[in-house]
Amino acid sequence: MTRSWWGWGNVEDEIRGAELDTLLDRVRALVPGELAGHEPPDVAALGLPEPRVSAPASLAALCSADPGDRAAHAHGKAFRDVVRNLHGDLRHVPDLVARPRDERDVVDLLDWCTREGIAVIAFGGGSSVVGGVEPRCSDDRPVVTVDLGRLNRVLEVDVTSRAARVQAGVFGPHLEEQLAPHDLTLRHFPQSFEFSTLGGWLATRAGGHYATLYTHIDDLVQSIRAVTPIGVSESRRLPGSGAGPSPDRLLLGSEGTLGVITEAWMRLQRRPRWRARTSVRFADHAAAVAATRAVAQSGLNPANCRLLDAAEALIHAGVNAPGGVLVLGFESADHPVRDRLERALELCRDHGGVPSAERGGNGDDGTGGTAGGDAVGDTWRASFLRMPYQRDALARHAMIAETFETACTWDRFDELHHAVTEAARQAMHKVTGTGVVTCRFTHVYPDGPAPYYGIYAPGRWGSTVAQWDDIKAAVSEAIATHGGTITHHHAVGRDHRPWYDRQRPAPFATALTAAKTALDPAGILNPGVLLAAG
Amino acid sequence: MTRSWWGWGNVEDEIRGAELDTLLDRVRALVPGELAGHEPPDVAALGLPEPRVSAPASLAALCSADPGDRAAHAHGKAFRDVVRNLHGDLRHVPDLVARPRDERDVVDLLDWCTREGIAVIAFGGGSSVVGGVEPRCSDDRPVVTVDLGRLNRVLEVDVTSRAARVQAGVFGPHLEEQLAPHDLTLRHFPQSFEFSTLGGWLATRAGGHYATLYTHIDDLVQSIRAVTPIGVSESRRLPGSGAGPSPDRLLLGSEGTLGVITEAWMRLQRRPRWRARTSVRFADHAAAVAATRAVAQSGLNPANCRLLDAAEALIHAGVNAPGGVLVLGFESADHPVRDRLERALELCRDHGGVPSAERGGNGDDGTGGTAGGDAVGDTWRASFLRMPYQRDALARHAMIAETFETACTWDRFDELHHAVTEAARQAMHKVTGTGVVTCRFTHVYPDGPAPYYGIYAPGRWGSTVAQWDDIKAAVSEAIATHGGTITHHHAVGRDHRPWYDRQRPAPFATALTAAKTALDPAGILNPGVLLAAG
Repeated sequence: MTRSWWGWGNVEDEIRGAELDTLLDRVRALVPGELAGHEPPDVAALGLPEPRVSAPASLAALCSADPGDRAAHAHGKAFRDVVRNLHGDLRHVPDLVARPRDERDVVDLLDWCTREGIAVIAFGGGSSVVGGVEPRCSDDRPVVTVDLGRLNRVLEVDVTSRAARVQAGVFGPHLEEQLAPHDLTLRHFPQSFEFSTLGGWLATRAGGHYATLYTHIDDLVQSIRAVTPIGVSESRRLPGSGAGPSPDRLLLGSEGTLGVITEAWMRLQRRPRWRARTSVRFADHAAAVAATRAVAQSGLNPANCRLLDAAEALIHAGVNAPGGVLVLGFESADHPVRDRLERALELCRDHGGVPSAERGGNGDDGTGGTAGGDAVGDTWRASFLRMPYQRDALARHAMIAETFETACTWDRFDELHHAVTEAARQAMHKVTGTGVVTCRFTHVYPDGPAPYYGIYAPGRWGSTVAQWDDIKAAVSEAIATHGGTITHHHAVGRDHRPWYDRQRPAPFATALTAAKTALDPAGILNPGVLLAAG
Repeated sequence: MTRSWWGWGNVEDEIRGAELDTLLDRVRALVPGELAGHEPPDVAALGLPEPRVSAPASLAALCSADPGDRAAHAHGKAFRDVVRNLHGDLRHVPDLVARPRDERDVVDLLDWCTREGIAVIAFGGGSSVVGGVEPRCSDDRPVVTVDLGRLNRVLEVDVTSRAARVQAGVFGPHLEEQLAPHDLTLRHFPQSFEFSTLGGWLATRAGGHYATLYTHIDDLVQSIRAVTPIGVSESRRLPGSGAGPSPDRLLLGSEGTLGVITEAWMRLQRRPRWRARTSVRFADHAAAVAATRAVAQSGLNPANCRLLDAAEALIHAGVNAPGGVLVLGFESADHPVRDRLERALELCRDHGGVPSAERGGNGDDGTGGTAGGDAVGDTWRASFLRMPYQRDALARHAMIAETFETACTWDRFDELHHAVTEAARQAMHKVTGTGVVTCRFTHVYPDGPAPYYGIYAPGRWGSTVAQWDDIKAAVSEAIATHGGTITHHHAVGRDHRPWYDRQRPAPFATALTAAKTALDPAGILNPGVLLAAG
């Protein structure tokens, strides 16, 4: 497999041929447009500027100035990144890409960059959609991107406590591969699973597999080890503690601004043995939301609890349900879960939901296949991992296709949802004349949902980034005005800064700035992310 | 009811008469000793020093210089506090006790103290057992203790999201009283429930009712509002967020060093309708620990999962079980939980546990009494709230009676437990010639337990504080050496500082100090707690 430098995932998995035709047909039915295709440029022809810095001899072997490397580390994988890549618009590229072999190398790299005032961007899988790894600094200092991909080992497994010490640069599949012989799993499956790393998940507070309870990677952390410019930080391995403010919680979400995470002790699960799942159709979206809230507040704690609205259900699950579809799944390594599913379905019926007659999963004795049995959910799941590839295919056809997400309390959801979808529609109409907005809940809490929105509009080739930026600004304003968070699990990076700055309490910003300055006196770590570059 | 100035809780609830005789008889059977009683001194006779500061006219009405007030705010409620009170040893008392009526008063008090360089100790219920509210500063600056008891209202209830905006000074029972009409409850019941406040729980990361999942108050927080010397901080109400490091997590556990918490939006529960509980006896403690681990890792998530060791079971539940007793309880507002209890009992039987034939709780139809039905658990629960009063009665009889607690991963528990109990026994033997150490788990996690230890030894009247300090230092060393946390839910205060300083990562200490200096430039907030006084 070959990683795409310009778009999502592997080159071999790009959407082509019949799959592309089907996708374009489906999109044409929703939004009119030309949909002419465009090819990505040749990296060699980009004419990247010469690196402004060269590594000292002791670090030279770790550092690459290869144009392909530099281009592949210049952007994340947001729509605006992919489109700029397609246009060969790489205004900011790292001068060097460094690949440390161990923690000692990370220390040496930070020491060198501190001495020379070189900016350092920690890079895991590079799947940021918020400008988090883009060397877009406010000044013209050189930038070294530190790609942690070589730190990819599970170093220790504690089967008794179900935990493992894992290096930060490991990608999702490789991590699970190393845990499998111990019958353990992290069960953290973000949509980016194949193309993102543990360190990236920790630094950005990634959202994972569980729709309830353990929604963020935060909850799976036992301790974190990170290299800061003033020294190595390692918290004690603990199942819980009340000794002062949590050191780990300061690093979780720090997005490479306070230190470079090199390893972590992570809490693991045994692989689930019992599963039960199905889907529920609704005639009315408000009733579907009420049903989802009842399930979220029931203490049943489904592993999956995704409410797809009508448009999302139609596009990604091929289902016509005016009020949307709730995809429900329970799992356990210890006991049957079918009774929990049935209780959740009772709650859905109370709100007018119509459960599918099909039940996925297996029997209460733990036997039977684990796949199939729920056509709607299965179709949606299959579509889920293809979505970023579809987004890229549409981007090549001048479509604006992107997602954004938030979370809010239940009492505010109706108003926020109305405001956000209206803002999206108006902005799309203004910039493209038409467009579709979809919504699903990726995670739900007893006190509120995390809605995730999709935008599909026919853009103008050469202008789709600017068009998207206008739409994004409008929906971000709506989110901020109506009490949502600017991000539930996509992080802040550089692109969410204006709204993040308003969201976060001013005294906390002061405290965080002071903490940053203490840990990173030269201000080399990911300048411009979370905080204004000092 | 009259609050005791020198000891736990209400004067009317002190242990006297037949209850005292029974307690002393039981203790005499365990540890030999004289057990002569001593009366607390008269506050008026303490001869407290004159206040070193007087409030400006605008704040005078909020401030008390009454000796009873000052004495009652001088110490927390640790054994060493109670004994020092009994001896009239009040070396450090606040100069004034201020009782703000609203947040504006808190702002004005901090402004005044910042201007004058007066130390400020935020005070909730004063149940600290770690010197957290004791005005023991490294210099001789005046101290104003800010008692938040007047900020005791539930200001808003959001029934849809099951959340409430609550003032920080409210005590447990008064909070629940205000939530009851909405059929909601916080269900945070630390042992100190009656005599501690929401703000205190937040500032110290208190441990509550739930043995699993929502163990600390941290998990029940939606947003926090606090007054810092540089301004008011308020986080957005959110069910979950990934926007940078969590602002709330910096205040949780800050113990009054970063700001004075004035209110919070808290996540609530519906009152449980279904309950199931029983107890399980074990012949062998290692097997009991293994069974508890199996339950903790099962995903069954019992609300109660307390493993009492043989001594704890004997003293507090009147049961003879060489390997200890596991008290198990499940609850739900939504669905029957008896099947979960039965599955947990299967896991216990797999490890040689013998479940009681009795089952507490109610039927699967949700009817039936909720009390009784499990004699062992019921006896233990009844004893639970009397324990601090018993401790005081024993302290008056020159007994050393105190608790300490930690948490560690399961793989380290055997070694830590052995080291801690040995250190306790050796230290007790050295200072008193004898003594008993008990252990229970207050909370359990998939990756480790939170063991809670009790110490009972016959002291020498006049020396019991010094004797206890020697024992405490020995067990704290054992905890630190064997990978435990210096506190799972008792906080750090002043007394845990030496071990906390070693536990916390050095770069985090630097960052926290910088954050503190930024928020509290004059260094007035609880100097000496968490960090060295600047």
